[in-house]
Amino acid sequence: MSHGIPVESDLSFGILRNSIGFRLRRVQLAVMGDAIAALAPLALRPAQFSILVLIDANPDLPQSKLSAALSIRRPNFVAMLHELESRGLTRRCVSSGDRRINTLALTAEGRQLLRRATELHEAYESRLHAHLSAQERVELTRLLGKLE
Amino acid sequence: MSHGIPVESDLSFGILRNSIGFRLRRVQLAVMGDAIAALAPLALRPAQFSILVLIDANPDLPQSKLSAALSIRRPNFVAMLHELESRGLTRRCVSSGDRRINTLALTAEGRQLLRRATELHEAYESRLHAHLSAQERVELTRLLGKLE
Repeated sequence: MSHGIPVESDLSFGILRNSIGFRLRRVQLAVMGDAIAALAPLALRPAQFSILVLIDANPDLPQSKLSAALSIRRPNFVAMLHELESRGLTRRCVSSGDRRINTLALTAEGRQLLRRATELHEAYESRLHAHLSAQERVELTRLLGKLE
Repeated sequence: MSHGIPVESDLSFGILRNSIGFRLRRVQLAVMGDAIAALAPLALRPAQFSILVLIDANPDLPQSKLSAALSIRRPNFVAMLHELESRGLTRRCVSSGDRRINTLALTAEGRQLLRRATELHEAYESRLHAHLSAQERVELTRLLGKLE
């Protein structure tokens, strides 16, 4: 996969060559660069896209549960949410079950943007998938699951 | 693998559930947290460890080649290198081939720290490897290589 990152280098990587942690970081760097570029036309970061997906998929979702599920640090999460809200994509509601809990919902504009972002995300995933056979995709997902 | 990150969540991850990009980010988050913790006793970040490994493995290594090989952005790279130098771990030299090129070398102290860091890194990699069979490790490395 070509990301402009010279993975094939004439340098010796010493003990890092066989380090799974190091290889994961490299792949993540490359893949993340693609994900950022894919969503850039909508001025959406991958983490913000994840937030929109989870709000859409989980009605009456408490804020605290969302940040935990996505492992986003509190200050970063608050800043990202604030931006989504000020763009009119999300809104805060009061939980139907417990009025002390803030929950999140998409606005009509948020749902519309999510639809467009989902298309861009699927195109990006297809490009990623193209480097693997169907069987390899299943196997990679299984192996990554063991490291989570 | 338990990293305190609630991967198993009662939330729906919608289209992200089958996203290889998303799963890579999650695993990377978890694994990176472990790598940071493993090297913390030496006040060394994983990227700084990589820099020391490559300087050690490649004599007369030009600075520019090193930052490119590790895909570290220039400002970050300069800051990290500055810190390593001010801690007396690395030193800048003039290339034996071309006197206009700055190259890097480890000091005696740098080599000593790298030995200790390598031990910590190997212990961390062993913990990571323990979640996979030998065959799975080879397979994961092969599949990650296809995405690089």
